[in-house]
Amino acid sequence: AAHGARKMEDYGRFLALLASALLVGFASVVLSLVWVFQYRGGLSWDGSEKEFNWHPILMVMGFVFIQGIAVIVYRLPWTWKCSKLLMKFIHAGLNTIALILAIVATVSAFDFHNASNIPNMYSLHSWIGLTVVILYCLQLFSGVAVFLLPFAPVRLRAALMPIHVYSGLTMFAAVIATALIGITEKIIFALSAFSYQKSPPEGIFVNCLGVLLVIFGSLILWMASRPHWKRPPEENAKILSPIGATPESTEAESTMTNSGNADKSDPRSNTEAARKENIKFDEAGQRSTM
Amino acid sequence: AAHGARKMEDYGRFLALLASALLVGFASVVLSLVWVFQYRGGLSWDGSEKEFNWHPILMVMGFVFIQGIAVIVYRLPWTWKCSKLLMKFIHAGLNTIALILAIVATVSAFDFHNASNIPNMYSLHSWIGLTVVILYCLQLFSGVAVFLLPFAPVRLRAALMPIHVYSGLTMFAAVIATALIGITEKIIFALSAFSYQKSPPEGIFVNCLGVLLVIFGSLILWMASRPHWKRPPEENAKILSPIGATPESTEAESTMTNSGNADKSDPRSNTEAARKENIKFDEAGQRSTM
Repeated sequence: AAHGARKMEDYGRFLALLASALLVGFASVVLSLVWVFQYRGGLSWDGSEKEFNWHPILMVMGFVFIQGIAVIVYRLPWTWKCSKLLMKFIHAGLNTIALILAIVATVSAFDFHNASNIPNMYSLHSWIGLTVVILYCLQLFSGVAVFLLPFAPVRLRAALMPIHVYSGLTMFAAVIATALIGITEKIIFALSAFSYQKSPPEGIFVNCLGVLLVIFGSLILWMASRPHWKRPPEENAKILSPIGATPESTEAESTMTNSGNADKSDPRSNTEAARKENIKFDEAGQRSTM
Repeated sequence: AAHGARKMEDYGRFLALLASALLVGFASVVLSLVWVFQYRGGLSWDGSEKEFNWHPILMVMGFVFIQGIAVIVYRLPWTWKCSKLLMKFIHAGLNTIALILAIVATVSAFDFHNASNIPNMYSLHSWIGLTVVILYCLQLFSGVAVFLLPFAPVRLRAALMPIHVYSGLTMFAAVIATALIGITEKIIFALSAFSYQKSPPEGIFVNCLGVLLVIFGSLILWMASRPHWKRPPEENAKILSPIGATPESTEAESTMTNSGNADKSDPRSNTEAARKENIKFDEAGQRSTM
């Protein structure tokens, strides 16, 4: 009973952090919209500064907020009854949306530069930002090829998993760092250094946007790195399946229970043993990261 | 034998990453010095821009490079034969040096602003930067009070450890993000936005410094988050101590071996049992993080 109460308390803490992250992330998107519409003349797609204005909005919405949700989507407790395969599709789908928005945002910056005869790729923001977009692309393709499609051998999955998790979290942090550089660059270009130094309302406003992005990133990274909030392993899938149901060949149904060694002494077929080993490796790959 | 070979290969990989991190970190310090002496007129302490020039140098040297070493110092394999207490002193000492350099660097920026009638605390860089300096201070004091001094109960240590590790890594990342904002701000103030956009040598040069900082941070965070590179637990301390040596009361000697349960059935005194529990909790605290 005490154990159950502690579990509920922990669940409540997760929900509180999730609600905070969603609130802060949503507020960041709103602030980026207010910045553009209140202070920067709104949106269009005509090579003007209004086309550039898509850049901060789509980056905050896609590359920060949606990527942040993608990072923690496996940890939402109510998804643990869904199959791992479905969750992989959702994880890959959210990251694909984030990537598309980031690419459109990048194009809007290049387009604006070209139309206004401003050089491209001169700034630290552009160097780090474009590198992250390219690496994010590679991460998405390698992730789909190795973890989502059924062809990769178990050992490759186990070997890639720690790198996949590390790259994902590091790129998420790098995107936020790049956004902070971008906000600073844009506010100085828009107001001049001298005006920014006098703390005008727009200066304070974009600083607040930057602070919200840092808080959002910190919340997501905390939630993503607590081992006890991981989706439970698939171990007991067969036992808890309805009688007569056949387990999937590459993806085991997950459950919300966690009584690890219940079927240790079961006699099992060769394919069952292989499935177990598969799970063990998958686990190894995941446990060896965060 | 195969196991031993794998261990050596893993050790070699750690050393290669460590060498890369030291090289990149050292190169960052050199680049910050070259920036200041080649392009920005050198150093002094007179309220001029030359006083401000201490800011990037001390931040890169102290808050990035030395903090980075402090983050991974427990993981250097040749320190595993040193007592945990000694390593805690070294960890706290390196962080204290980093903090002092960061504070002097902060003072140099305020001093320069005040002497030149430039407002303070108007920028996103200053908001995030000062917040991190204050939080870093709190982290150092709470770390010394709870983990270094012998007064804190074991349960408090176990509860604080995941937060301590998370805050440490997050602040390290935030310091690098803040440095990137600072580099961008300074180069635009120094050259004007228009000149920076034409990719002059100084612009390219500081972008390279920023890229090096990102690579240094990524290497340190990778090394700090591999579970198999953790300092091994203290479990076997007593067995492997020379005959007649008494184990320390709060700190157990560590060893490089790892055969966890060798002395499970030993009869033991009450204080010995307490020491074991202490270790178990300490472990729990550490394992529950990265």
